[in-house]
Amino acid sequence: MKPSIPQGTRDFSPAEVRRRQYILDTLRAIFELYGFQPLETPAMEQLTTLMGKYGEEGDRLIFKVLNNGLHESKKKDELVGEWNRLLEKPYNTPVITERALRYDLTIPFARYVVMHQNELAFPFRRYQMQPVWRADRPQRGRYREFWQCDCDVVGSNSLINEAELLCIYRGAFEALKIPQVTVKINNRKLLAALAEVSGAAEQMMEITIALDKLDKIGWSGVSEVLSRRGISASGISVIERIIAIKGDNETQLTQLEAELGATEAGKLGVEELRATLAYHAQLADASWTSKLSIDISLARGLNYYTGVIMEVTTDAVKMGSIGGGGRYDDLTGLFGVKGLSGVGVSFGIDRMYDVLEELQLFPEALAAGAQVMLLNFGAEDEKYAIGLLQQLRKAGIKAEIYPEPAKFDKQMKYANKRSMPYIIIAGETERLDARLSLKNMQTGEQSKINVQEAIAMLNTTK
Amino acid sequence: MKPSIPQGTRDFSPAEVRRRQYILDTLRAIFELYGFQPLETPAMEQLTTLMGKYGEEGDRLIFKVLNNGLHESKKKDELVGEWNRLLEKPYNTPVITERALRYDLTIPFARYVVMHQNELAFPFRRYQMQPVWRADRPQRGRYREFWQCDCDVVGSNSLINEAELLCIYRGAFEALKIPQVTVKINNRKLLAALAEVSGAAEQMMEITIALDKLDKIGWSGVSEVLSRRGISASGISVIERIIAIKGDNETQLTQLEAELGATEAGKLGVEELRATLAYHAQLADASWTSKLSIDISLARGLNYYTGVIMEVTTDAVKMGSIGGGGRYDDLTGLFGVKGLSGVGVSFGIDRMYDVLEELQLFPEALAAGAQVMLLNFGAEDEKYAIGLLQQLRKAGIKAEIYPEPAKFDKQMKYANKRSMPYIIIAGETERLDARLSLKNMQTGEQSKINVQEAIAMLNTTK
Repeated sequence: MKPSIPQGTRDFSPAEVRRRQYILDTLRAIFELYGFQPLETPAMEQLTTLMGKYGEEGDRLIFKVLNNGLHESKKKDELVGEWNRLLEKPYNTPVITERALRYDLTIPFARYVVMHQNELAFPFRRYQMQPVWRADRPQRGRYREFWQCDCDVVGSNSLINEAELLCIYRGAFEALKIPQVTVKINNRKLLAALAEVSGAAEQMMEITIALDKLDKIGWSGVSEVLSRRGISASGISVIERIIAIKGDNETQLTQLEAELGATEAGKLGVEELRATLAYHAQLADASWTSKLSIDISLARGLNYYTGVIMEVTTDAVKMGSIGGGGRYDDLTGLFGVKGLSGVGVSFGIDRMYDVLEELQLFPEALAAGAQVMLLNFGAEDEKYAIGLLQQLRKAGIKAEIYPEPAKFDKQMKYANKRSMPYIIIAGETERLDARLSLKNMQTGEQSKINVQEAIAMLNTTK
Repeated sequence: MKPSIPQGTRDFSPAEVRRRQYILDTLRAIFELYGFQPLETPAMEQLTTLMGKYGEEGDRLIFKVLNNGLHESKKKDELVGEWNRLLEKPYNTPVITERALRYDLTIPFARYVVMHQNELAFPFRRYQMQPVWRADRPQRGRYREFWQCDCDVVGSNSLINEAELLCIYRGAFEALKIPQVTVKINNRKLLAALAEVSGAAEQMMEITIALDKLDKIGWSGVSEVLSRRGISASGISVIERIIAIKGDNETQLTQLEAELGATEAGKLGVEELRATLAYHAQLADASWTSKLSIDISLARGLNYYTGVIMEVTTDAVKMGSIGGGGRYDDLTGLFGVKGLSGVGVSFGIDRMYDVLEELQLFPEALAAGAQVMLLNFGAEDEKYAIGLLQQLRKAGIKAEIYPEPAKFDKQMKYANKRSMPYIIIAGETERLDARLSLKNMQTGEQSKINVQEAIAMLNTTK
């Protein structure tokens, strides 16, 4: 039988691992620069930690781990009962399964903060880059195992945090050289105000969910949804007018203040955006090329956001958002610790990978791994080549030798398949001269030099 | 209800993540230097890929993932049948569970090589550093989720590979500054010869398994086991004499040749060790402090080894081996591809972590993360401090500001809890002078300097 891997999962080849590592290393450097701290949680959580946290759909998509040693259980009757209930609906069945695979990084983070609240120094700023698992139907760009990368601060209401996260976004995409990046920013309080002034204060979430689809279904689609949800025609036209507000951030703030400033939420929402932008202006690097724009139509799907929200896109590639986040209140309230406000952003690692790939932004050096391969001609030549290999590595050059004195063609085929940038030919002629022939595999150029010269040359190509 | 995590799993705090990352980064650099390539495989494998590969005990300890959507299944009868079989013994039950968590990195590697045999360039040299899961009873130092780190070459019989792996071990432990390291080396062929000359050629595996316990139960324990396994008294005394061989590697090889060289396996075993050591001598760095010693009593438990075997220990800490490996034939044969010989080593990441911790070998800078925290005095001072923060980060200094103008004591308490090495005080006095006060939190020393001077000073402490 031919071996395979589960649907929706992936093996990552050497080139893919190196490229993903490049993304993760770049993000890690930025997080650390901003004083964020790494956290890692186990792949398996207690099923009770996860169940009921992601809605009914989420409960269905959680991968549950079968308890071990069921055949040795002394409670066979109970097991059979549970099993029958499990066959009826996705159910919390601790005798059969009490563990499940991490579904996102947010709930494990909240669980960690609650468990360690007495040791942690608040505000607690953490980043976390780990795989998560969802039993979604696999499709192009959607996997059952995929990587998330989150960066959050809990225990601080200061808008400095929002501004720092905006800078982390801009700094990260700058470091990765992704062009035409826009960081959009809005405030859930303004969406609440929008609902209020359109006479549908109670329907803020419905309006938010409808607006979240604006990119996909256009205004006509959104207005249809709003009408179906019972928003009045006059209310809809107010919404239409306000989400059409455009212009630079200061212009938009002035107009939003005029439209929404009479409500408490609107006044606060504009104030918060203004303060966030002011902090951002002080913290940002003037050389960054990305844009930061208020977008009153930005909604974000998740219902736990309560303040500033943000989302990142690039116009350079046709693709959805490559990051998003916002302020939430009371995430840890789920586990009994109230009053810890937080704000966080996510990076869409898989999509970022695709963007870098499509725009050919991965550094070339990542592809090959080794910089040079020594051919192996056996006997005395092999000894000589191994001596060279030892010196190259000692000088920090990533080098390898073909481990057998195989036919020249076979060794060359291997070097080509590995995309080796250079090879070293050190046969009898070179050996008797205490030299080596360094060949550039791309240009075909070849020079007979000594090992020190080879090290110097290879060092310039790193 | 208080949240918790599954027994035998761990959250890794910021300091722990950084320290483990330090180990993984060090190993990665060495693997890359030797031309090894990274590979990552999914956490979940097909259950059929894993079942039957780790013995009966292994089958029992594999974490199986429940299939999703069982309640929507149209084959409820079949499900109930499978369930009843599952309650009898650990059984391959694809209707209930067709996926399982990775149990080690070796089988997924073999599975990957077989699936990609036509694209791969052989010899294929890969390293892999990922968590694995086993439903073992948790105890001190034994976890249900733990990290493995493997480094293998498949598709080459050359002993250069063995020598390179020995160098990778020695280079890695040197880079991590672990003292008193010994890499022990032996050859399964010599153990076969040992069985032959002690008149128990058929019982080579029994002898190997008994010898593997020598450290734990001593020679008297081993000889008792051997006698119980039916080895004759004269055979046991031959074994006793041969495993007592000591001395430098050349001395041992000479004696082993005298004792075992008359057998085909013994002759080959000595030859292979000699060639491996000769390659190693050419490849090694003379400055390495670890020892490389032949140890004829080294057995290694796993039954798939067929050639050179190796194991690493340190005398600096009381602990079992921190690495081991060897040559195996036909690993991919399990999946239908015959004739690919390989050789590989593992690093015991968890134990290495404990060794570094106990000997205080982790670089100090790993602990804190951020290098400096700016106190926040609000209003104009906050603005001034944020300006400084922006300049520090632009210069690559890991810096953060306390996000609120909280009470001085509260901010200081936070800085202490975070073990912040430096703080910056930039209040009105400093601001009006365009200066800042940089305080060393360990010595209490404080200097009023400008931001460029602070950057220069903080750069020296990285």
